Amino acid sequence: MKFSVTVTLKKDVLDPQGKVVENTLKNMGMTDLKSIRQGKHFEIEVNENNITEAEKKVDDMCKKLLVNLIIEDYKINKIL
Amino acid sequence: MKFSVTVTLKKDVLDPQGKVVENTLKNMGMTDLKSIRQGKHFEIEVNENNITEAEKKVDDMCKKLLVNLIIEDYKINKIL
Repeated sequence: MKFSVTVTLKKDVLDPQGKVVENTLKNMGMTDLKSIRQGKHFEIEVNENNITEAEKKVDDMCKKLLVNLIIEDYKINKIL
Repeated sequence: MKFSVTVTLKKDVLDPQGKVVENTLKNMGMTDLKSIRQGKHFEIEVNENNITEAEKKVDDMCKKLLVNLIIEDYKINKIL
């Protein structure tokens, strides 16, 4: 069973990497750019056919390693 | 208008960072993990109300800076 996990910085947390990308794009002439924020993306495949169990396992991985819950939010989606 | 962009390594490209995360999770006892691949995620807001134009601008940013088309794929989604 396959899931995608998107990890983003919380709204009020500074995103220096995103800021650099934003400035670079603006310097390249993309003046319509309002804001850009960068995050992480994971594609996780688990050996588990029960969807509730599988999602719990992915959630566990996020909490234990992938996500810093103090400054980051995350969202898990099932991939068909 | 807001878009999310997901950048992933192409299927046949080695993902050393994902591999390290995979090994770490397995060493932590998550034996049900089959595979994990890491990518990038951007949230982009543009000053443009025409959806076709806005999407074209985001696509342009991807091609010119955000994505390495030789080794990466990308997907643009509108955020409501």
